[in-house]
Amino acid sequence: MPRYQATLLIELKDGILDPQGRAVEGVLRDLGQEVESVRVGKVLEVVFPAEDLQRAEEKAQAIGRLLANPVMEVYTLEALREL
Amino acid sequence: MPRYQATLLIELKDGILDPQGRAVEGVLRDLGQEVESVRVGKVLEVVFPAEDLQRAEEKAQAIGRLLANPVMEVYTLEALREL
Repeated sequence: MPRYQATLLIELKDGILDPQGRAVEGVLRDLGQEVESVRVGKVLEVVFPAEDLQRAEEKAQAIGRLLANPVMEVYTLEALREL
Repeated sequence: MPRYQATLLIELKDGILDPQGRAVEGVLRDLGQEVESVRVGKVLEVVFPAEDLQRAEEKAQAIGRLLANPVMEVYTLEALREL
């Protein structure tokens, strides 16, 4: 069966306070970078088997739904490629 | 000055053990998903001012270099757009 690699982004919804992002903002400013805001999320590279590209996209979306907390987070299927 | 938003991925290098990814793998299998491997990294959405797109790309690359640990991590400028 073909193997696919999905890149999934899991990020906090707008309006949800992001202390880790605030900390990174402070670090970058201390290092002389002019930044307006930083938001930190997770990226997952998931490798899995699937019959074809359409079925692979369905599986990747299902994995995103399972891993993101719908109250605070949104997920995005950023990329999907056959290996 | 124009404002830009960069999406930076910071991921563990191949070969570096990723216990968080292993844990997510186990969770997905317990939930009935057939997965081969999962790697977990960070995604940063950084908003900053820059004169133009070329200068914005240079700034985004500089921020990636500052935030990634060169021993264990690689960074990728995944997207860059003017706001």
